[in-house]
Amino acid sequence: MYQLLEEYLRKHAAISDQEIAAFCNRLKSKKAKRGEILLEAGDICRYVYFVSKGCLRVYLMDKDGRESTRMLIPEGWFGTAFPSFILQEPSQAFIQSIGASELFYLNYKEFRSLSDIFPAWGKIYLTNLEQSYIASIKRIESLITMNAKERYALLMEDNPDLIQKLPSKIIADYLGISQETLSRLKSKV
Amino acid sequence: MYQLLEEYLRKHAAISDQEIAAFCNRLKSKKAKRGEILLEAGDICRYVYFVSKGCLRVYLMDKDGRESTRMLIPEGWFGTAFPSFILQEPSQAFIQSIGASELFYLNYKEFRSLSDIFPAWGKIYLTNLEQSYIASIKRIESLITMNAKERYALLMEDNPDLIQKLPSKIIADYLGISQETLSRLKSKV
Repeated sequence: MYQLLEEYLRKHAAISDQEIAAFCNRLKSKKAKRGEILLEAGDICRYVYFVSKGCLRVYLMDKDGRESTRMLIPEGWFGTAFPSFILQEPSQAFIQSIGASELFYLNYKEFRSLSDIFPAWGKIYLTNLEQSYIASIKRIESLITMNAKERYALLMEDNPDLIQKLPSKIIADYLGISQETLSRLKSKV
Repeated sequence: MYQLLEEYLRKHAAISDQEIAAFCNRLKSKKAKRGEILLEAGDICRYVYFVSKGCLRVYLMDKDGRESTRMLIPEGWFGTAFPSFILQEPSQAFIQSIGASELFYLNYKEFRSLSDIFPAWGKIYLTNLEQSYIASIKRIESLITMNAKERYALLMEDNPDLIQKLPSKIIADYLGISQETLSRLKSKV
């Protein structure tokens, strides 16, 4: 159960087995059901998650119930409704477990004190944040300059697993296109 | 000339006058002309900038010469073509000084070693990164869920100065709307 998390930590910093064990002990774990809502918009996001199995989705909903996927948190990644978690303000977004998933999580206070018991965390978090910021810049670029076909090609390049694993409804929504357009693109590529 | 930078540093960490002076000495300074290109797409972005006067724009250009503004770096902020600077890879984006501007800058190596001579920098950079990531998430949200009017209202709320100071061509491009739509919105609000 800890395997992906261990890999993640070792990839980002040189750390001992003892430190890894201490880190893993610090996290709580949870199984989420298919479609389970982990955070409702309007609530303050209490937890940051590490997805050891499955995939989470962070999405917005307008007054008419139309959903827009802000980001996906795939297996092997940390993620949360970041603005709400960091600012400890009510969230604009929902967090949902797409299929069944296995998660580790920490609350805000535990998250902010991780560096005290686990010095390598400072560097790991900084690297994670740089990568997440770069990913969000790429997403902005794709939204302002690319058409549906190019956005699909980019996702194929960056995260081919996601396209295979996730329902097409979610992928289409993430790309900002209809399911019909998505299946046309899939059959062409 | 150092005033805004000093304010920025003091806002983010408790630091002494000596530390501030050491930090400021570390930076080089430069005046950029109106429209000056600081980074060409395809080149590796060498510098991170602090804008002490003026505003920088990070933008993409497609094969037909059509420009899309990825982000604006207003007075009093650090910024750069972040993916290229952090990964030290060729940039997708250009950086341009919109009007005349006054800048401080550091190269990548100096940037990465700032914490050694200036311990508070680690915390300042982390906070800056969290804020920048939150700003980029808000920009993604505005792109996937808002219409032109709502995007304009958001910019008015977050950065009213920009709308007053920058040419409407740049604002319209940042919002992803035509200049005609922008002037209609301006006259309504």
